[in-house]
Amino acid sequence: MIDVEAANRTAVERMMASRPRLVGVDTARRAIPWLAAGRRLLHAGPPIAWERASGPLRGAVIGAALFEGWAAGEAEAEALAASGEVELAPCHDHAAVGPMAGVISPSMALYVVEDATDSHRTYSNLNEGYGKVLRYGAYAPEVLARLRWINGELAELLAAALAAPAAADGGDGEPLDLRALAAEALHMGDEGHNRNRAGSLLFVRWLAPRLVRAAPSAAAAERALVFLGDNALSVLNPLMAACKAMADAGHGVEGSTVVSAMARNGTDFGIRVGGLGARWFTAPATVPDGLYFSGFGPDDANPDIGDSTITETAGLGGFAMAAAPAIVTFVGGSPGDAVAATLEMYEITVAEHTAFTIPALGFRGTPVGIDVRKVVELGITPRVNTGIAHRLPGVGQVGAGLVRPPAAVFEDALYAWAERYLPEHHTEEES
Amino acid sequence: MIDVEAANRTAVERMMASRPRLVGVDTARRAIPWLAAGRRLLHAGPPIAWERASGPLRGAVIGAALFEGWAAGEAEAEALAASGEVELAPCHDHAAVGPMAGVISPSMALYVVEDATDSHRTYSNLNEGYGKVLRYGAYAPEVLARLRWINGELAELLAAALAAPAAADGGDGEPLDLRALAAEALHMGDEGHNRNRAGSLLFVRWLAPRLVRAAPSAAAAERALVFLGDNALSVLNPLMAACKAMADAGHGVEGSTVVSAMARNGTDFGIRVGGLGARWFTAPATVPDGLYFSGFGPDDANPDIGDSTITETAGLGGFAMAAAPAIVTFVGGSPGDAVAATLEMYEITVAEHTAFTIPALGFRGTPVGIDVRKVVELGITPRVNTGIAHRLPGVGQVGAGLVRPPAAVFEDALYAWAERYLPEHHTEEES
Repeated sequence: MIDVEAANRTAVERMMASRPRLVGVDTARRAIPWLAAGRRLLHAGPPIAWERASGPLRGAVIGAALFEGWAAGEAEAEALAASGEVELAPCHDHAAVGPMAGVISPSMALYVVEDATDSHRTYSNLNEGYGKVLRYGAYAPEVLARLRWINGELAELLAAALAAPAAADGGDGEPLDLRALAAEALHMGDEGHNRNRAGSLLFVRWLAPRLVRAAPSAAAAERALVFLGDNALSVLNPLMAACKAMADAGHGVEGSTVVSAMARNGTDFGIRVGGLGARWFTAPATVPDGLYFSGFGPDDANPDIGDSTITETAGLGGFAMAAAPAIVTFVGGSPGDAVAATLEMYEITVAEHTAFTIPALGFRGTPVGIDVRKVVELGITPRVNTGIAHRLPGVGQVGAGLVRPPAAVFEDALYAWAERYLPEHHTEEES
Repeated sequence: MIDVEAANRTAVERMMASRPRLVGVDTARRAIPWLAAGRRLLHAGPPIAWERASGPLRGAVIGAALFEGWAAGEAEAEALAASGEVELAPCHDHAAVGPMAGVISPSMALYVVEDATDSHRTYSNLNEGYGKVLRYGAYAPEVLARLRWINGELAELLAAALAAPAAADGGDGEPLDLRALAAEALHMGDEGHNRNRAGSLLFVRWLAPRLVRAAPSAAAAERALVFLGDNALSVLNPLMAACKAMADAGHGVEGSTVVSAMARNGTDFGIRVGGLGARWFTAPATVPDGLYFSGFGPDDANPDIGDSTITETAGLGGFAMAAAPAIVTFVGGSPGDAVAATLEMYEITVAEHTAFTIPALGFRGTPVGIDVRKVVELGITPRVNTGIAHRLPGVGQVGAGLVRPPAAVFEDALYAWAERYLPEHHTEEES
């Protein structure tokens, strides 16, 4: 008889013991071997082909093809993608995560995060900031120009700054501890998914002297500091890679019903479960409920998209909303709703996080380790904070809000779990 | 008949309309004419002479005399101060504020804050960081060496960075709006007095590209970024000057019973009242109740000291504690106590701040404008968050905690108010 409670406890303890640190910035094709050959792109969420891809993912694929020089214009890029010549694979299948469309192409730079407990490495791309950006499916010339600077001068500078952390005055010579950073940010009103203001400031504060030391010129350092400092999501991507490391640490425990990945590609919402290997359980993604930017509304919204739900998987984001009452100005609702969101998530999780605590709840740990059994039994699906993309390629962000995964993915996962771990019981029920 | 309600409303509206901005860094003797002649020092709190000065204030005076080269050693500096040759005056009497001992000497650098509404200028010194520092009465060689660097290289760099804000890429060409910074910091878990982590990060984020542009070398920029970035109180001093500007804006309204200054010199706690001119109402300062650093306890504590209570005067600090539940790890108590502190202060204030809001209280404005009448009538004195200094000169900080002003200062002020504004009534009562 499988001891599910023990398996889940082990899974969550491994997640909480994981200590992801930012060890470098590298080129995607070097960090992720699969990207080194052919015309290949990673994307957010579970697997999907061009034919079923939503507008923002298509837009990001077009933009990435242009960025890589695989096509000279939009039509050519679209034809190339539609021809099947561009291979697509989930970021998650290559230890990576990307916000929104999450498209990572071979020439892009990646943050390299390493778990200090077992040297497992995870990756995320560099955040582009606001407005028209590739991750929301925009690919206008200014989008590509910004991508070139981010993945050129900025990435080189970050790589140089991170390559010699021991040399930085005032530093302790250790790589940036992203779990510690997230924990501190929770005490400063972040929840780590949609609100990363404090974490981004902590990130820039840590980077600033190292960037200055590594920069070829004061002008280059100034450009980097302005760009990273003006972007309240600067830390989202390395933090997502850190959450991926934590979630991966809890994956693979025999019998575990703990969710180890939640991700959306703009068409499907998918989850993975710790005791069920690499299999994705998917169902159609729904449209978030939230606040729209001026001139946009629900009719413009694409269904839920992005790997950023890895934050909720690791006990942050919607699960930590009680730490971030100010987020309601961005996603809607009241500060009371933010507290209620966290309290509700305790119902479907295995533990209270030992590293992530919420001052307003008397320093109670965030709910962590989504138990598929509890989700199905109680009919409570996880709470997710997210950005909202326009449904057409080339537009961009139109709002931000709250969303819940479709219940079907948890039901399917539990069914599969029963099939694998309770074969006799399962057969009886089926007969 | 004087309309006190209208006077108080006017006073608080002026406080809330004040828009202090950081316009420069200058040398004290140039910014404050009184310091240009003789051997003169400013100090925190109401007026006091050497004879009655507490240990930390004496230590800071000795340190300042050494820093200025007025004496070659401790004994000589002490003798000089005891001789009366060093003139002392409150920072507040010269539009300045300083944390803890608050000693400002002629060669020190000052942040220059200007109210955009009326060009009124206020000042504060540069924060020294933690450990053995002059503001806590320490004056060891390393304290003086750090002071020389802060008031030398760092001050020159800050002055240069602030002198050309319009040139900074990514900036809007406007001086740093300190009211907006404080408002944002309240949404990030600061209360603006004892907890300034978020505000300091916002400050460093704003400064970083400007420092890099202004620095004579990458090494100088790096030193400044490490020092300012490692100090979670970097923004306290300019923020205090901003609070002084706001409090000053509300001062001088005929008939007002609103407190326009609260300050302590380590011996006496003093307040000023908007309708009662420059007069200080003082009583013996009490010892804060709080958490002590390892190896120290209440017997080591000096009575309450510093001008930093200007933050509570302006609606921050203890009045905004509900915004900063994590502060209880530093000052003691529970997150519930932090909320209760703010709620209690609504009882003795005139308004809810229109610029400073608390997400956890549904974005309710912080209590602002302490009404002497309400303090006396309800017997509720203001709540203050503060650091705790060792009672002996030369030691430094020993803890942090909560304190309340002596009730007598409010009773004396109300009596003086009645004497001035209700002469007949007052005479009757006295007869």
